[in-house]
Amino acid sequence: MLDKVADLQGLMRNMGARAKAASRILAQSPPETKDAALRAMADAVEAATHEILAANAEDLERARSSAMAASFIDRLTLNEARIAGIAESLRDIAALPDPVGAVAAEWTRPNGLVIRRVRTPIGTIGVIYESRPNVTADAGALCLKSGNAVILRGGSDSARSSAAIHAALARGLEAAGLPADAIQIVPVSDRAAVGEMLAGLDGAVDVIVPRGGRSLVERVQRDARVPVFAHLEGLCHVYVDKSADIDMAVSVAVNSKMRRTGVCGSAETLLVDEAVAGTHLLPILDALRAAGCEVRGSGAVRALDPAAVPATDEDFRTEYLDAIISVDLVNGVEGAISHIARYSSGHTESIVTQDPAAAERFFGAVDSAILLHNASTQFADGGEFGFGGEIGIATGKMHARGPVGVEQLTSFNYRVSGSGQLRP
Amino acid sequence: MLDKVADLQGLMRNMGARAKAASRILAQSPPETKDAALRAMADAVEAATHEILAANAEDLERARSSAMAASFIDRLTLNEARIAGIAESLRDIAALPDPVGAVAAEWTRPNGLVIRRVRTPIGTIGVIYESRPNVTADAGALCLKSGNAVILRGGSDSARSSAAIHAALARGLEAAGLPADAIQIVPVSDRAAVGEMLAGLDGAVDVIVPRGGRSLVERVQRDARVPVFAHLEGLCHVYVDKSADIDMAVSVAVNSKMRRTGVCGSAETLLVDEAVAGTHLLPILDALRAAGCEVRGSGAVRALDPAAVPATDEDFRTEYLDAIISVDLVNGVEGAISHIARYSSGHTESIVTQDPAAAERFFGAVDSAILLHNASTQFADGGEFGFGGEIGIATGKMHARGPVGVEQLTSFNYRVSGSGQLRP
Repeated sequence: MLDKVADLQGLMRNMGARAKAASRILAQSPPETKDAALRAMADAVEAATHEILAANAEDLERARSSAMAASFIDRLTLNEARIAGIAESLRDIAALPDPVGAVAAEWTRPNGLVIRRVRTPIGTIGVIYESRPNVTADAGALCLKSGNAVILRGGSDSARSSAAIHAALARGLEAAGLPADAIQIVPVSDRAAVGEMLAGLDGAVDVIVPRGGRSLVERVQRDARVPVFAHLEGLCHVYVDKSADIDMAVSVAVNSKMRRTGVCGSAETLLVDEAVAGTHLLPILDALRAAGCEVRGSGAVRALDPAAVPATDEDFRTEYLDAIISVDLVNGVEGAISHIARYSSGHTESIVTQDPAAAERFFGAVDSAILLHNASTQFADGGEFGFGGEIGIATGKMHARGPVGVEQLTSFNYRVSGSGQLRP
Repeated sequence: MLDKVADLQGLMRNMGARAKAASRILAQSPPETKDAALRAMADAVEAATHEILAANAEDLERARSSAMAASFIDRLTLNEARIAGIAESLRDIAALPDPVGAVAAEWTRPNGLVIRRVRTPIGTIGVIYESRPNVTADAGALCLKSGNAVILRGGSDSARSSAAIHAALARGLEAAGLPADAIQIVPVSDRAAVGEMLAGLDGAVDVIVPRGGRSLVERVQRDARVPVFAHLEGLCHVYVDKSADIDMAVSVAVNSKMRRTGVCGSAETLLVDEAVAGTHLLPILDALRAAGCEVRGSGAVRALDPAAVPATDEDFRTEYLDAIISVDLVNGVEGAISHIARYSSGHTESIVTQDPAAAERFFGAVDSAILLHNASTQFADGGEFGFGGEIGIATGKMHARGPVGVEQLTSFNYRVSGSGQLRP
């Protein structure tokens, strides 16, 4: 990856123009061609396992010498199983129904006009991400499946891994006779490249998808001149209601927090109904600690569990992405709703309860992208939703919300068939 | 309407905060309450017919003394029939199914999780419009039905008419026990108020809907810090294919252009397949002229019809909103697709042909919000689509495209029901 180039704007706009040209070809490409490319990309990624791991080892060595956090290293790390997972995900995406041309709705008007709403590609997607190199493959594949060209801008920390994955994707595209310009990766680490993408590359970029920490997403939302699928942090909550089954509460809380702490769907805050604090709180906190989690509690929590580290207000605003959880007691489902309205990033929240009315109230009053009842927040994932992969979890409310899969990467238009109808 | 106020930002942000508070109440309001308010609003508009017409007469007098164009006067003019139409439209919107809480999709995962995608309100909508006073009622009602608060910013030319309509809407809201803050109208003509709305009123505005001419929409797209439902001009085309029925071609072209020339769905350009120029062109152009339309033709058109006024390239880029049409010959459906790709604003295009293959090719290759086959472009209207009213015709590709009705004014979230599922 280059540090700087003389004419960054020219380079970036040229990428935009080539993406736009490729997007026109993709929009007219039949499903079989796109799926053949996706399968060829999977084969190419597997065939390149050795060189991808070698590139990743270089990225990891740099990251370790910079003393990056464990969660950062976890997101950056590839191994044979994760590379096999990338290839598997590409094949899963190939096997999905093609979203382009699908008739989302059809109805007939009293005057005989037949109106169909048909899915169409968006055009060109700009994806800006940080350390997770598998985004290169997932985002490239999802954009291709949905008929869009994509310009990828990965973090410099994962530049070697991403470049090696991208090279394999390009080989797959060419094998299927599709333009390599359909999936491009910015070859310059200069952060001004992000500014060029946010300005839209002279009208070539239709939407920006930022994936990363708060500072990246806030910069994108502030500076973008094109639509953005906002992906803010995942400040996810698990609320244990007074009617919760205690064993389920323990297992859902531990899985939500500890299955993988570096993902946006991991829980950062546990809320326990004060009505059952005496029975439910300690078993959950003990299980979290036994799993290696640091517990930070409010004053009310520490009154029942002096082992808890004191939690500040800032703790309840923090996406740890690490084996730490903040804990508070709340006054029933209404208390949980208030706490979540104040602190949540609008990503994912789970209620554990055997009371359907409490779950229904929680579902109706919490305005987050994903709400779960008696299930782990770690299900906040496009694959787990059956979308066959995702480009991220959107926390904005426009167009895409929650897991962004191939359907969310399409637009639509209306196609109206008549027999000479005139409007009176 | 005030010209200026000392603390415009304070006034606007206060409106935003009140809208946000009202939006929380609306989001939890049952359909019956919202529908009762809409019917009360219709009654109040009818009861206020006299005062709305008096206010409109003042606006019209000012517009005439400023020598505004006929199309402008047409958009501004209210009469008893149009006011009855406004009330009727409010009742139509009340009778629509409530979009909030509707389950747009539901599926079960192999692990037993049941996932529902449920429609939710967006929050607060900012609507910026120009001279058409009925937008006040339509936008207010559609936002209310979809559970959103709205801040309306009408043009100063229609300020008196819009204020009179808004007063009736507020009476309807109060009659149903809903907060009057749910539908607010900016009481200051200072254009800086628009800038405040585009900045988002301190996070209170979730989306901006601009309705107006190119300069308004371009300003909004350039300056908005929140998502925008772009409503660019309607540079709509009618293409008469070589397989068109000649009588249908005449009637569709005349209706598309002349039914109402001041609406965005009126045709501005006629394209005729050169293969049938000898038979089809003159009957269409004669009929247009007989209906009072000025015909501006390319060189190829004028070679066959010397009566046509010469058309420049600029003509093909112009939304006349008047009884003028630009005309060119093209080389079949591919020629029409190329011309439209170059000149269209992406709003609405119609093909007249008896050949299903030509229509299918047109539908698949033209990327505009609404495509019609053998029907008038004037059907580009939410009411005609069965949406029971619209806030505009979006030409962007994100979230809403084509007529923006109540469904397009909602977001959604995912509600997942489990029985203790953990992610492996």
